[in-house]
Order: sequence, then C-alpha cells, then structure tokens
Amino acid sequence: MAKEQEAPTVPTVEGQLENLLTSDDLSLALSRLDSIHPADQADLFTRLDQPRRSTMLSLLSGDGLARLLEYLDDEKRIQLIDEMPRASLARVLDRMENDEAVDIVQSLPASEAARVLSDMTTAVEITPLLSHAEESAGGLMTRGYVALHPEMTAEQAMTYLRLRKPFTEEGYYLYVLDEEDKIKGVVNLRELIVSAPRRHIKEVMTKDLITVLPGTDQEECARLLQRYKLKSLPVVDEKGILNGIITGDDLMEVAREEATEDMYRMAGLPADESVSAPWTVSVRRRFPWLLINLVTAFAAAGIVSAFEGTIERAAALAIFMPVVAGQGGNAGIQTITIVVRGIAVGEIQLRDVRYVLAKEIGIGVLKGIGFGILVGIIAWAWQDNWVLGLVVGVALLLNILIAGMLGALIPVALRALKLDPAIASGIFLTTFTDVLGLLFLLGIASLLITQLA
Amino acid sequence: MAKEQEAPTVPTVEGQLENLLTSDDLSLALSRLDSIHPADQADLFTRLDQPRRSTMLSLLSGDGLARLLEYLDDEKRIQLIDEMPRASLARVLDRMENDEAVDIVQSLPASEAARVLSDMTTAVEITPLLSHAEESAGGLMTRGYVALHPEMTAEQAMTYLRLRKPFTEEGYYLYVLDEEDKIKGVVNLRELIVSAPRRHIKEVMTKDLITVLPGTDQEECARLLQRYKLKSLPVVDEKGILNGIITGDDLMEVAREEATEDMYRMAGLPADESVSAPWTVSVRRRFPWLLINLVTAFAAAGIVSAFEGTIERAAALAIFMPVVAGQGGNAGIQTITIVVRGIAVGEIQLRDVRYVLAKEIGIGVLKGIGFGILVGIIAWAWQDNWVLGLVVGVALLLNILIAGMLGALIPVALRALKLDPAIASGIFLTTFTDVLGLLFLLGIASLLITQLA
Repeated sequence: MAKEQEAPTVPTVEGQLENLLTSDDLSLALSRLDSIHPADQADLFTRLDQPRRSTMLSLLSGDGLARLLEYLDDEKRIQLIDEMPRASLARVLDRMENDEAVDIVQSLPASEAARVLSDMTTAVEITPLLSHAEESAGGLMTRGYVALHPEMTAEQAMTYLRLRKPFTEEGYYLYVLDEEDKIKGVVNLRELIVSAPRRHIKEVMTKDLITVLPGTDQEECARLLQRYKLKSLPVVDEKGILNGIITGDDLMEVAREEATEDMYRMAGLPADESVSAPWTVSVRRRFPWLLINLVTAFAAAGIVSAFEGTIERAAALAIFMPVVAGQGGNAGIQTITIVVRGIAVGEIQLRDVRYVLAKEIGIGVLKGIGFGILVGIIAWAWQDNWVLGLVVGVALLLNILIAGMLGALIPVALRALKLDPAIASGIFLTTFTDVLGLLFLLGIASLLITQLA
Repeated sequence: MAKEQEAPTVPTVEGQLENLLTSDDLSLALSRLDSIHPADQADLFTRLDQPRRSTMLSLLSGDGLARLLEYLDDEKRIQLIDEMPRASLARVLDRMENDEAVDIVQSLPASEAARVLSDMTTAVEITPLLSHAEESAGGLMTRGYVALHPEMTAEQAMTYLRLRKPFTEEGYYLYVLDEEDKIKGVVNLRELIVSAPRRHIKEVMTKDLITVLPGTDQEECARLLQRYKLKSLPVVDEKGILNGIITGDDLMEVAREEATEDMYRMAGLPADESVSAPWTVSVRRRFPWLLINLVTAFAAAGIVSAFEGTIERAAALAIFMPVVAGQGGNAGIQTITIVVRGIAVGEIQLRDVRYVLAKEIGIGVLKGIGFGILVGIIAWAWQDNWVLGLVVGVALLLNILIAGMLGALIPVALRALKLDPAIASGIFLTTFTDVLGLLFLLGIASLLITQLA
C-alpha cells in the first residue's frame, strides 16, 4: 500500500506535466511526477497518448511503478504491463503487496506467469496464493502481517518490530502463532504499547477470533467484517493454520463492487461492464440480455395477439395497456429492489422470509386496491364507459397484487437455489407483469365484450 | 468501537439465552449474554418480545449497553432508548464513540437532548459536533484521535501514549498539532515504533495531508478515502484547525448506504425505506412515487388514445406496442444504470461527458439497427404484412437510439443541476421510451395507414 497521506493535486500540475512529457526537460517532468499522488498519476496515465505514456513509465522507479500499478483499474493495468519492459515486471511485482501482485500474475498467460514468477524473489510467498479463486477469501488475502510468539514479552515484541521494520500495512496486524503456525490470538499495536513491558503476549492478546476459510466468498467476508466492525479478517485453514489476512480497505472495494454488480444484474448487464470499456466490447456484452428481453417482450405480444379480436371490437382497451402493464411493473420493481438489496446487505435472513412475504403481499393488496379504484374511475370518466372502468380497475388490482408477491418471491427463490438474487430479477419481474397485466386486462374484457363494445 | 475480535455465535446459544431470559436463573443468562458478540446481541434484541428485552437490558452493564447501541440499526436504537431507564442514558452515551453518541443525541427531541447533554461528562466534546449535518464530514467525524506535539521525540510520544492509554480506535491515528491546534502532519504507530527514539515527531511525520472541510458531503469523503487508499481523513476548518477525524469503517458504511440509495432512487423509493420498516410506513413511503409513475403511464395512454382510429383500422399494431415500448426501455435502462453508477463511484468526471455521450449514442445506433431489423422481419413474417414490419422496425430503431441518448443525458443533466443523478432516473427514462415508442409506432403507422390496413 501507498503512503498514508499525500497532497491532493490541482489539475494544472497534471496539465503542465502532460506538456513536460514531450519536452526535453525530463528532469523537471520527473520532479513534477514525484510530487503527485499515485492515484493522480494513475488518472494522468489513463489520459496520455502512447509516446507520453512510455516516457512517463521510463521516468518512474521500480517503487514508483509498483505504486502506480496499485492505483490503476484492471483494464489499464493490463495495458501498462504490456507496455512495460518485460524484464522489469518481476522487479516491480516484488515491490507490491502480495494480494495485488497475485492478481497481476493471475492475469498473465500461463507461460509468462511462470517465467515472471521464476524471476521474483517473493515467489515463495506468492505461489501458495495463486491457487485461490479471485473472489474468495484466499484470493483477497495477503501475507503482509507480523507474526508474534505467545511466549514473547511485550518489550521483546516491540524490539522485534523495531528490527523487522514492517511495511506500512503490516504493522497494524500482529497475529500470535504457535510453532506450527496455528493461530492463537491477535494483538493490536495500541495494546502492545500500553501493556506492561514484562507481560507475555499470550496474556495481552485477544483469543476469540472471527476467522474465515480460504474458500469463503468475498461477499461473506465483507459482511462479517462489517457486522463485527473488524479491521482485518484472518484466513485460517481447516487445521487452524494462518494462511493470510484480509484487510478492511480491500473489502471496502468489495462492498462497492458487489453493489455495482447487483445494480447491473437487475438491469441485465454483465458485472464487468464499465464506462471505460471499448464500445465494441460494450455492444457484445449488452446484446445477449437485450435478446432475452426481446423474447419476453414477444410473450406479451403473444397475449395481445390472442385477443386481437377483442381489441378490434373495443380499441379503447389499447389505451390502458401501457397503464396496467407499466404500473404493475413499477410497483413490483419497488418491492424487488428492496428485497434484493436487503438480501445483499444481510438485512434479510432465511428466517425472515415469511415476514417479508406477508408484508409485501399486504402492501400489494393496499397498493392494488388504491390504484385499481383510482385508475378504474379515471378510465370510466375518460371513456364514459363504466364497464371499461371496471375491467381496467380489476386488471390493475390483480396485476399490482401479483407484482408485489413476485417481487418478494423471485429473489428469495433465486437465493434458495443458491443463485444471485439480483440476476435478471428485474427482467423476470417485468415479463410477468407485462404478460399477466395484459392477460387480465384483455381476458376480463373479452368476457364482458358484449357490455363493453 | 468494540473489541477488535470476538467469537462468532452459533444460533443455539442465542436460542438458549432466549429461554433463560424468562427463567429464574438470570446469572446463567448473564454469563451467556456476556459470551456473545454485541453484533449478535443486537440481532437477539431485535427478535425478543418486550418483557425479555427489558430483562436483557437490565442485565447489561453501562459498557454493555453502549456497545449494544453501536451495533443496532437506527430504528431499533430509538426503540432501545425508549425502553431504557431515562437516567442511565447519559451514562451510556459517555461510554460510546463521539460520532455515535452525537447521532443518538441528534435523534432525541430538543428538550430531552438538552437534559441528557447536561448530564454527560463528555458534553464538551459532543456539543461542537452537534451542529453538523448528519451526512457531512462534520456529522461523521469523531474526536477520538491522539494529538502529538511536533517538538516531542519519538520516545516521549511513546511514553505519552503509554500514560494516556487511548481507546482501541484512537491509538491508530496520531495527529501532530501546533499550539493553536492547527494540523501539521500525521504519524502512524508503526512509524513511531521503528523510528530512532531521539528523533523529533516533526522529522518523522508525513506533512502533506488530504483533508476535508466540515461541510464536505459524506459521499465525497468516501470517494477521497478510496481514491487515495487512506485509513482516516482529518476534518479541518478554514483556519487549518483539526476539528475531528473520519475513520475508514464509518465510510465503508457510507459506501454501502450510498449504493442502496442509488438503487432505491432509480426504482422510485425513498432512501430510508427498509425491509424492517413497519408496513404502514412502507405504504406511505411508496405511494407518492407510484402516483408519479401513474401520471407518466397516462402520458403513454394519451398517445394511444390520440391514435385510437389507427388502431381500429389495424389492430395488429397493438400487438407490437409492448415490444417497441419495452425493448426501448430496457435498452435505455442498461445505459442509465452504467452512467448513474459511473458518476457515483467517480468513474465518470465532467471532462468525460462528451466521450460517454458519443459512446452511448454509437451503441444506441448499433442496438437500434440490429433490433430494428430483427423485430421488423419477425413482425413481417408473423403478420404476413411487410408494411407492418417496416413500421415496427423503424419505430423500434428510433426508440432504442433515443433511449441510449437519454440514458446518458438524464443522469449527466441531473448532475449538472447539482441533483442526485439517480433520482427517479429510471422513471423519467421509461416515461420517455413509452411515450416516444408509442408515438413512433402509431405515428408512422397512421402515415402509412392506407398501405397497412
């Protein structure tokens, strides 16, 4: 990780730097570059053309490159690695946090990954981390912690820290391990400093730990960290051996990614879509879902087609098609959004399902009665036809009622099937509300067609 | 904040405890209660009936109550405070983190807040924090940091820490202040420990700080913290005086809240809606937006009504109404979700607007041509009418094209007006795609009605 605090940069510095990178005064460019935060360097890098980018890379030291890499998003990272002299990659990766270096090695083609690993001095630490899935605890963890022994005194631990000079991050997480690397407890720096120098670590440490297995999903890790307000989460295997730790800042990123994923999935977008993706990629990614949407839209069209004769006799029904279908969909989208988000943040547990269903059905009844009567009266008054008002009102009532039930049931059912509750929830829901809304409207109308037309 | 690490609880312990709370063996209940994490106590509290809740509260110490309060959500917090003996509230608040205590005092009626404050020993620290809006940096900050003097040596600082015995949280954030409380730099514990004992703090500290003003919005704070990978953010007034600090864990909560807010707003829900709200409250909260939806649905109905004659002559048009309106809406929802989220996480800056617009319009053209041709051919084949195919295809092409433009423009425009880009974005968009889609379909059809019918 980078330095704890550094100056924010005014855009003009970056603008000047952009010009300096094509000038002859590279020493001035270098000093400007050094004065801006790696997060701002990452922004600048993203905006530069290829010749300026390579000048910028040539100015940065190994540490500088390592820090720049940490602040770039995945797509730009791959670009930087492509443009970097091959030989220096291992040297740069050695200077990065374990978990970040692992992500990069995993993104390389297998043959290249092997070659880079053989050049790295930190390969021993990195290699065991490579086997874990990127979105699991094992894929997020770092070996950047300090291990203490239970029989050390507080004073000895301090001396050890002073000699070892841990990285910025590492120093915060002091784990107590026995001879077999089994985890015994945790001490934080504050506890170490304020304790009597002669006390043993085993007396100072907190023994009850919340731990996760290497295979635990990242979303579950984020939930535990937030629920118990932890700063870090030790990853421990079945034998109780500490494999690594996950730090809070990595999981903040996860919480954000998972929220984006939920929003995207509800809208029928792949989780990895982003504004900065090339537009050919975006088109390829967005077409499949729209194709599925289209199939569902034709289901609604099929219903209308089946009742074409009814519409020919009472064309006014077509006027209320968008109202009945749309209002049902919107009512259901409210429910489904609340339930999907509630499951994602852990507010809804399986034991709450019955309560949530009962509540949403109750609200559906109220919404349905309210809007059914309102829209029925408007339809009657507008078209001067009370049978039409009755048909529209009852169809809307039924559609809103069922929309509420489905809005609660669909994500809960997806969850019970161990699928992501957000997956295309919105699409399933609006298909049902379109199809059922039109079926209710046109079906009831065809029963009453002699009174209606 | 609570202890760093504690044991997770198996459900059976909580179940046993639930029974113990009505038994006579309260000492056993107390020992069970003490063995579970406050986060799990909070869960238990939420599920208990009133008599058991009050037994539970009577068993907890002042510290225990303070920790339980920290882990309860806002609604349950208010309930607990209502059920707590009035006199003990001040005592419990004294034991909480500043920022949490402030939130609670702010939620009390003014007269009661004044009474509680007058009983609190930490009133001096709390009072200046009360004036800030809850969603601003000032509302999030705590005074829980340790202040060092620039002329202290590292050794003196350590001795000072040992004597002062800071809270768990505080110890991590060592800020260097001059005589006027102006912020000069920051030191972390690790740097302090590894530095030579005689070095002065002013030589060890990092001088360039990223700071925020008390009025800075919480979303901006979260963005800075994540962008620069900071652990805490000092809140500094115009004179450079340190008012407090915001810690990373508070902002993780913020990132999650803001994501929920965006999802809710897009679905036309108030930001404070939740699964656990009483259902009468939920109904009151959800009706207004559905009423607005209804007005927009009637705009679409108005379009259909204007073309009722066209539908009477060619009822097959009604079949394709849900396809043209729905497919346009879905295409636009993809775009708007990406743009809203991109703005929220800071991926889209104002300077990127032109690029984003150009890209989304380009994708809209491709989607429009692709689906226009596909649906046009299906309509032609299905209804054996090539004019109908042409009408449906062109209407869909235009609707998807405009949906993409609006999907990018609406959130950017809301942002330029300094409104939340998410606010009802989805509703605005689907209104436009419904109204325009039906206008294109029925309008073009009425121009070609002689060939069509």
